Amino acid sequence: MADILDTLEVVIRERRTADSASSYVARLTHKGRAKIAQKLGEEAVEAAIAAVQDDREGLTGEAADLIFHLLVLLADMDLTLDDVRAELARREGVSGIDEKASRNAD
Amino acid sequence: MADILDTLEVVIRERRTADSASSYVARLTHKGRAKIAQKLGEEAVEAAIAAVQDDREGLTGEAADLIFHLLVLLADMDLTLDDVRAELARREGVSGIDEKASRNAD
Amino acid sequence: MADILDTLEVVIRERRTADSASSYVARLTHKGRAKIAQKLGEEAVEAAIAAVQDDREGLTGEAADLIFHLLVLLADMDLTLDDVRAELARREGVSGIDEKASRNAD
Amino acid sequence: MADILDTLEVVIRERRTADSASSYVARLTHKGRAKIAQKLGEEAVEAAIAAVQDDREGLTGEAADLIFHLLVLLADMDLTLDDVRAELARREGVSGIDEKASRNAD
Repeated sequence: MADILDTLEVVIRERRTADSASSYVARLTHKGRAKIAQKLGEEAVEAAIAAVQDDREGLTGEAADLIFHLLVLLADMDLTLDDVRAELARREGVSGIDEKASRNAD
Repeated sequence: MADILDTLEVVIRERRTADSASSYVARLTHKGRAKIAQKLGEEAVEAAIAAVQDDREGLTGEAADLIFHLLVLLADMDLTLDDVRAELARREGVSGIDEKASRNAD
Repeated sequence: MADILDTLEVVIRERRTADSASSYVARLTHKGRAKIAQKLGEEAVEAAIAAVQDDREGLTGEAADLIFHLLVLLADMDLTLDDVRAELARREGVSGIDEKASRNAD
Repeated sequence: MADILDTLEVVIRERRTADSASSYVARLTHKGRAKIAQKLGEEAVEAAIAAVQDDREGLTGEAADLIFHLLVLLADMDLTLDDVRAELARREGVSGIDEKASRNAD
């Protein structure tokens, strides 16, 4: 069974050139890269706030919004979720996911 | 084959209670929810900036960091990527991914 | 002559309890602390993007929006711009603004 | 008496070209516009989280950090706090601060 994330990615790529009147993806894409990037930042702020408020339902929704907009942004850069998966796998393969993160993210 | 995202999620959940000296996940988790949430926000800002700079390699790395920290935050809330997948699937099922997003995210 | 920042702060404090129909401050305040905090985060993301795009006019506007929402958030916490000024002066007094920032913000 | 904000702005502009070993402003400026913009976003996320946690002392410190990095970013764009003050005054003059914000920020 296809991962909903991959299904969503395909849908998003199809909608980029759809009619703006009916498609949020088309409308957002038409506004340009900076607007998509801005939305990604906004959704992360909302997710962070929901988490601090211990709002599990809220975080679930905001995490969905965050991933949705990340896929829109990746598509706009002609990147795919598989490119990100490959980067995560590469980090794991080289030195263990956690140690790699340890060096990069402290 | 297991999705690297799910593998990563399992690893992260295991590392939460590991030794802080060797594990970034343990160290970050120990600092508390607000610190994890803050990291999520920071990675999204970095991803947004990389995208606006048209830095494909940069965005790939930042998107990996963003997903990594989203998984750490979800784990800290006792939520899973499958919870987020279910929310995304629910939206698609109700009214089409894009139309749902259209109503929520404008 | 009064600093526009202080004038703005007074206006914002007055508008908190005004009619939501006519006042953005009243409307935002009514939505609650988390919504104000979210707006602050959003304006910072927009300012960051404008800067990276080398958009001077855009950054001027976003910086104005950022300060505006910071004042709304401070008011909602019963803090003032003078509290922030005192903190900045304290840092300068203790060890020089820059060195203090150096220790805190790296 | 000079506003600490203006004093700080002068200090920041002087430090931009100082020795990186002793100056945080010089060090950050040397890293480039995107890094300064990133720091602004990060400080806003921290301020938002402090506010949601009802942490008055925390918000005071984060607001100081936020304004500090906004001044560093403005300086890097050859803009001043007075440019932002003029924008805020212009909005007030045209139609009232609050109504203007109402049209722009909803």
